[in-house]
Amino acid sequence: MSLDDTLQPHRAALMTALEEEDGERLGVLLGELRSADIGEIVEDALGEDEEGLSVALALLDGLHLERRANVLGYLPGEEQRAVAEAMEDKALLLLLEEMGSDERTDLFKVLDEDRREALLRRMAHREREELKRLASYEEGTAGAIMTSDYVAIPTGMTVSRALMRVRQTAPDAETVYQLYIVDPEGRLAGTLSLRQLMVARPGALIDDLMIKDVISASVDEAQEEVARTVARYDLLALPVVDADQRLVGIVTHDDAMDVVESEATEDIHKGMSIGALEDGVSRVPLWSLYRKRVTWLVLLVFGNLFSGAGIAYFEETIAAQVALVFFLPLLIGSGGNAGAQAATLMVRGMATGDVGVKDWGKLLGRELLVAGSLGLTMALAVAPIGVIRGGEAVAMVVAVSMICIVLFGSLLGMCLPFVLDRLGWDPATASAPLVTTVIDASGVVIYFGFATAILSGV
Amino acid sequence: MSLDDTLQPHRAALMTALEEEDGERLGVLLGELRSADIGEIVEDALGEDEEGLSVALALLDGLHLERRANVLGYLPGEEQRAVAEAMEDKALLLLLEEMGSDERTDLFKVLDEDRREALLRRMAHREREELKRLASYEEGTAGAIMTSDYVAIPTGMTVSRALMRVRQTAPDAETVYQLYIVDPEGRLAGTLSLRQLMVARPGALIDDLMIKDVISASVDEAQEEVARTVARYDLLALPVVDADQRLVGIVTHDDAMDVVESEATEDIHKGMSIGALEDGVSRVPLWSLYRKRVTWLVLLVFGNLFSGAGIAYFEETIAAQVALVFFLPLLIGSGGNAGAQAATLMVRGMATGDVGVKDWGKLLGRELLVAGSLGLTMALAVAPIGVIRGGEAVAMVVAVSMICIVLFGSLLGMCLPFVLDRLGWDPATASAPLVTTVIDASGVVIYFGFATAILSGV
Repeated sequence: MSLDDTLQPHRAALMTALEEEDGERLGVLLGELRSADIGEIVEDALGEDEEGLSVALALLDGLHLERRANVLGYLPGEEQRAVAEAMEDKALLLLLEEMGSDERTDLFKVLDEDRREALLRRMAHREREELKRLASYEEGTAGAIMTSDYVAIPTGMTVSRALMRVRQTAPDAETVYQLYIVDPEGRLAGTLSLRQLMVARPGALIDDLMIKDVISASVDEAQEEVARTVARYDLLALPVVDADQRLVGIVTHDDAMDVVESEATEDIHKGMSIGALEDGVSRVPLWSLYRKRVTWLVLLVFGNLFSGAGIAYFEETIAAQVALVFFLPLLIGSGGNAGAQAATLMVRGMATGDVGVKDWGKLLGRELLVAGSLGLTMALAVAPIGVIRGGEAVAMVVAVSMICIVLFGSLLGMCLPFVLDRLGWDPATASAPLVTTVIDASGVVIYFGFATAILSGV
Repeated sequence: MSLDDTLQPHRAALMTALEEEDGERLGVLLGELRSADIGEIVEDALGEDEEGLSVALALLDGLHLERRANVLGYLPGEEQRAVAEAMEDKALLLLLEEMGSDERTDLFKVLDEDRREALLRRMAHREREELKRLASYEEGTAGAIMTSDYVAIPTGMTVSRALMRVRQTAPDAETVYQLYIVDPEGRLAGTLSLRQLMVARPGALIDDLMIKDVISASVDEAQEEVARTVARYDLLALPVVDADQRLVGIVTHDDAMDVVESEATEDIHKGMSIGALEDGVSRVPLWSLYRKRVTWLVLLVFGNLFSGAGIAYFEETIAAQVALVFFLPLLIGSGGNAGAQAATLMVRGMATGDVGVKDWGKLLGRELLVAGSLGLTMALAVAPIGVIRGGEAVAMVVAVSMICIVLFGSLLGMCLPFVLDRLGWDPATASAPLVTTVIDASGVVIYFGFATAILSGV
């Protein structure tokens, strides 16, 4: 993580205060910064060297408990673990207690088994059970990103009492702007915004005001689905329910935003056949980066053997007219580029919900027209070069091959995500490298096939 | 846009009610749906055929004014225009008045010049000036996505009076949960959350409670910067100020989320050398789709001529040992894949702020290690095939070439985004097709260079 330029002077001032052991000045400086920014400076220090950890701890020590908990919440997993490991159980427990339930759970999950056990033993029964429950949800689901710090109002309450309840829970709740009404069995009965509550008659019953048809997510729903719902309906928070419709948490808009961003990063990486990284590219361990990249690269080496086989098959044609090889990278490259474009457009369209499986036919027709025009344009661009390099016959072979390869490549690139989806795979597996490799092999056959047919007659 | 499966039965029921001209039933059915969902059904109808427009208008007619404005706000630009063009000025004016200021501006901007003039003439002075001002901000800036429907509180107010003000503005404001305190000159003096306001003493002065160090954006700031700030500080809304620090609007979390999503789509498309599309891939006009794809495809055809030139240079080597061509697509393909991976990791890292320009040196060292290991692995994978196809000498040429091509390709792919950034270009121009094309040409030279050097001695 690179430290933001605007934070550099702040960091320098903090370092000076630390060196001079000027606690008062440190407090003032920290008071001028936002938690997210302190988090970034602490993260930067931790990435530095041996001494980084003690600097980070000194910075955290300069904060009062609530802010320390906030700052810790902004650190990535690795950095959280480093800080937590350097702290005593008692201090860490105090911090955990102060954190929001979703951040507490995330921090808890990066600790090692022994530490977790030690901490759980020192917790009160209710807290322990709550933490264990939240930590048990699978990564990437609604349960893993939700918080249990929401404002729940029992059915049957009046508006004035509900307002009082809101005031009481204000300091601890993640959001007080959306209230969730639960029946005696804990089932989600309705929702009400604070805005509606504020303009309602104080004596009115919540049950008469609440919206009963609540949009909610189930606890094991994929996090990208959750984020999409939040975005689609412009929600402040989305309630999460278990199999019995009991309210178990909420996903707030800021956490949904983080999901949208990290899912986009994952999709972009997948588009280049890179597996999901557990951290930013500048921080992820080298071994992990290697593993996430090597799998498909090696698989595609073998995939590329089909291109080689195609070339071996046409070796006679090539030997007879070596000049043909001149156009080989150009033709298969162009087909690969057009095909990767088509695949990418479909994969992203499917991810954002713009493209559905049943649009397939219509999109095929559109791609036929666009790719045909693209192939024609590119054939016109390459034909003169064909004439110069090998005469009219070669130019014809190259131009016709270009049209066919671009058209075939684009249609293949377009269809692959749908086929993968039908097979139950992630459509994003239709990455640029995969599509390019498949088109390379087809391009070799198309090109040398035409060459053999047309030039053998010359 | 593909209609969500869950909406199909609703649409069918709506169509039946329309056919039977059962207005009452239509109203009930529409009442069961959310505005976003009705918007999707209307959009779907508009995409259908000639009759679609009248169906869409009939559906909108079945809604009361406020909901009709909401639903219209959910439609994409083209569809909004189609509906607006079919409406009389008077009806359209009523709708515009009811819409949020940001959506009103968006709708206004898709209308043609004459219609805009006609509408402006019928508006009150203040509304007209406000609309003209909001419509004047450049697309892609904070000004273009902000709304002017925020709660502004003058300095010097007490908590109880501010609460009254919140209750009054509740129906019209985009959000009432974050209040903006402005001085008599209209400058942003501070901010206060409704949560803080609710727990404060009624007689206290706002000025004593408000947070003075407000995070804000300037009106001409890029929308992706705005979205990044909202995400970074987990904001509900970000105030937007003009050059004189006067508050002119706010960008809410849901609009920031839309920006994150559409910027991600744009980046993904750019990664395949596709220009920014003005609409989803299934809706954008074919001519536009062609134009956005053809530019780079044709440029890269010429870029690929360098590969051809390399091949022409080594024609003798190739003619002497045609079997070498077998490995050509495999080697340049592998280099291209590894290089595209490296470029993509950097481009995305720079977009999310994970990678900064000054991390360059550290990242180069990391890439050297990872790419070296990748090259070695891929060389080991391909060497046995070299032995089978052409004997030990060929295997050696292929293996050494693989290491060099993968290493060179990866380093080049990694550095290109930084170089482009330094030149003031968008780093995302380092797309997979561009990187692949450059590596193809280098790969040809590396491969046949080694082949000439090693095999000529055999």
